Amino acid sequence: MGATERLDFSEFSWTAMESRERPLHVATLLIYSLPDDADKDFLKNLVADLRDSTEFVEPFNKRYLAPTLTRPYPVWERDFDLDMEYHVRHLALPHPGGERELGVLIARLHSNPMDFSRPLWEYHVIEGLENNRFAVYFKMHHALVDGIAGVRMLQRSMSTDPEATSPPALWSAPVPEEILDSKRAVDRFRRAIAGARKTLSSAGQVTRQLAGAIKAAGDDNDPFVAPFQAPTTILNGRIKGQRRFATQQYSFARIRRLSKAADCTVNDIVLAISSGALRRFLREQNALPGRPLIAGIPVSLRTKDDQGAGSAVSFMLANLGTNIADPARRLEAICKSTKRAKSMTEGLSRDEIENFTALFLAPSALQTALNLEGRTAPIFNVTISNVPGPVETLYFRRAKLEAMYPVSAVIHGQALNITCYSYAGSLTFGFAGCRDSVPSLQRIAVYAGDALEELESVYLTEQTHIATQGSRKRRVGAAPKTSTAAKAANK
Amino acid sequence: MGATERLDFSEFSWTAMESRERPLHVATLLIYSLPDDADKDFLKNLVADLRDSTEFVEPFNKRYLAPTLTRPYPVWERDFDLDMEYHVRHLALPHPGGERELGVLIARLHSNPMDFSRPLWEYHVIEGLENNRFAVYFKMHHALVDGIAGVRMLQRSMSTDPEATSPPALWSAPVPEEILDSKRAVDRFRRAIAGARKTLSSAGQVTRQLAGAIKAAGDDNDPFVAPFQAPTTILNGRIKGQRRFATQQYSFARIRRLSKAADCTVNDIVLAISSGALRRFLREQNALPGRPLIAGIPVSLRTKDDQGAGSAVSFMLANLGTNIADPARRLEAICKSTKRAKSMTEGLSRDEIENFTALFLAPSALQTALNLEGRTAPIFNVTISNVPGPVETLYFRRAKLEAMYPVSAVIHGQALNITCYSYAGSLTFGFAGCRDSVPSLQRIAVYAGDALEELESVYLTEQTHIATQGSRKRRVGAAPKTSTAAKAANK
Repeated sequence: MGATERLDFSEFSWTAMESRERPLHVATLLIYSLPDDADKDFLKNLVADLRDSTEFVEPFNKRYLAPTLTRPYPVWERDFDLDMEYHVRHLALPHPGGERELGVLIARLHSNPMDFSRPLWEYHVIEGLENNRFAVYFKMHHALVDGIAGVRMLQRSMSTDPEATSPPALWSAPVPEEILDSKRAVDRFRRAIAGARKTLSSAGQVTRQLAGAIKAAGDDNDPFVAPFQAPTTILNGRIKGQRRFATQQYSFARIRRLSKAADCTVNDIVLAISSGALRRFLREQNALPGRPLIAGIPVSLRTKDDQGAGSAVSFMLANLGTNIADPARRLEAICKSTKRAKSMTEGLSRDEIENFTALFLAPSALQTALNLEGRTAPIFNVTISNVPGPVETLYFRRAKLEAMYPVSAVIHGQALNITCYSYAGSLTFGFAGCRDSVPSLQRIAVYAGDALEELESVYLTEQTHIATQGSRKRRVGAAPKTSTAAKAANK
Repeated sequence: MGATERLDFSEFSWTAMESRERPLHVATLLIYSLPDDADKDFLKNLVADLRDSTEFVEPFNKRYLAPTLTRPYPVWERDFDLDMEYHVRHLALPHPGGERELGVLIARLHSNPMDFSRPLWEYHVIEGLENNRFAVYFKMHHALVDGIAGVRMLQRSMSTDPEATSPPALWSAPVPEEILDSKRAVDRFRRAIAGARKTLSSAGQVTRQLAGAIKAAGDDNDPFVAPFQAPTTILNGRIKGQRRFATQQYSFARIRRLSKAADCTVNDIVLAISSGALRRFLREQNALPGRPLIAGIPVSLRTKDDQGAGSAVSFMLANLGTNIADPARRLEAICKSTKRAKSMTEGLSRDEIENFTALFLAPSALQTALNLEGRTAPIFNVTISNVPGPVETLYFRRAKLEAMYPVSAVIHGQALNITCYSYAGSLTFGFAGCRDSVPSLQRIAVYAGDALEELESVYLTEQTHIATQGSRKRRVGAAPKTSTAAKAANK
């Protein structure tokens, strides 16, 4: 047994909300190329080797103990005797081992709930991926990790040296201070939005700013989006237990070129790609609302009083302009909305940002507390996150990391999650959804690619496609001109 | 929606007892050889073809609806619009695709709980099994099927004609009357043991017989085993959610030869093999109790008043003689015990048998009702079933069925289940266990093979090994002679 430790607020929330319909684990899918000299037993030996790595750093050794009659709250205990055949698994894809077979397997693995009687992580090594590749699906409960910390953990178990043969296994590599800091920021964030801390004592300046913005939100002249402006869509009901998963990968340079041409941020392009895909997807299902979809976007901020005390996590809502057929006008609406949202927290201290976020998300916390998510009008329609990942190319026991994709959790009221990772010159999208609420999720991924091309056709001339320069490119805010692609989409 | 139908008693019991630690699905593992001319896409095409088979006979179209505020009991509704990509799955084994990799995969699949928002069955086609074979893992909730009905259902979806290309898919093949009858027998059995029906009005003859036997059970001169004579073992605590699985396959002729030589039944040999394996396994763990382990054995009986009204299901307890080092004396103890148990129901009508069984298993029903299984002394230690299967060699779309193995459920208080199938000249064992309670389950399977050889070395001379005839064979009851193998096992 040994010493136990009470779950902190954030850990408690994530474990308490766990159910069969809503398992709250998150995962990362990593795609590797096999080393040139790898033989048929390379992965078998890799798995055996990983299973022999039985030093466990936090949080890999934390085991959940449910409340008992004499201890009415759950605790963590430390487990150093893990069943490694359980935690480290060797799987394979059926022939032909393409992206389709991989997507099906990942969706299935992501649908399986975790075993709460063991430390809440699983590491799946998947062989049989075509073109001499293999995959790793690393799954951990959200109580133990958030997106950013997860990426950094994975990074620690890889090397920038293609010939390095023995970086420590993920669970044996010491967790650096920056990850612990990131977790602390997320903890503060969650405590704050749950109203557990000084929410109502918030500084007058912040309250006035928010109140004014919410008041103006009905006004077409103010692009600020307040909670509950979102329309009800098929993405916002109660979910069931099975998942779907799809991916897209783009060159980061391609996205940046477009963002420069359109004079907006990379994040705005991520939103515009998502928006274009969602608009087309919902129209096909005769389910596109007249009002624009609203995205909820977690934001990590370095604040003005940052003295090594770490970052603040906030949350903004953005108008996705899904009611607008023209892709340029749509991007314009998105940019206006995100600029206005960001203006709300500019120049604020960490405490002020946290108070602002708490006030802003109070309705969401209330919905969760009352188990009303997915039963009432949505606060927003879809979560879209962009998590910065490693810049340099990484290797894992001489296998090159070709791509990494986020596989997020979905929750009641939010049947679709779109998360992006950046890594070594690429930007990847992971689309995770409830199998029943989002029956053709694969199409959203395909349409994302089309939406990107459509934006390029508007903002980049043939020349700029090739030279990343050009005089004929359009900018957000210039007079709109309906593109051919947009016309086609309107038919 | 459509019409709904209330769950019958048996269905209700199986669904109400379902939990994360105790998922109550059962499965069959089928091993096929690929047709000689099968190309790389054979299984992919097979899966696509099966997914196109969207006619559903009972119980494949039954969907569970949980109780609601206005309907305080669960019901079945009919679902004819199944998500076939969910129900029919295509998987693969990692290299080298041997029995070990298969066992690990089956254990993992069997650990995953079923999704109660869909009809409670899954059909997994597994490629990559060495020697040009593939496997099918067919899983169904115990509320919808019992062992015998499951085997017969599978049989219906195969053909004795090696060239038959299109028997209907399992879920589209009409269920014959004999299967429905078997289900009715099991239903009656469960109703009876739960005391829901006329238990106490049981005929005096039966009650006296049972009471007399229980009274005599402490007596060394009566080999009758009554409930609660079983010792407490590591197999009889509370279980957790993960499973292990192992198999053995023997020629039926080999088992029959041995049973003839030892003058006992095939079932007695099954018990003796299990006993030998369990004795050695428990000794290695320093966990062999001084008193013999008791097996619980479901029995299907044709009764004297059988006029097409079907069979009766009963249950007997047998002394496994695990406290006896000598294999011949051990088999002798087993035979005495099973003979005495069978004498209890000989010549009884179906009603009488059911009443007897109800009285006999009343303590078990009580334990279940109070959720005490695995918390008190065990009623018996291990379930051992022998389910008769198809006699003729079967084919499925030109693939020859090489073997079929049962994958049973385990429950609190019964962390290990041993079930056998007979099929086309072979007898197969499926050992299913709780991953945590039975950490080296694989060894039990290996020791079963050793136990069989040990019995052969006692009862069959070299000649009989070859000729199935011999004058020097020993019979149960003859003066025991400790074999070399038994001596070794005693060290």
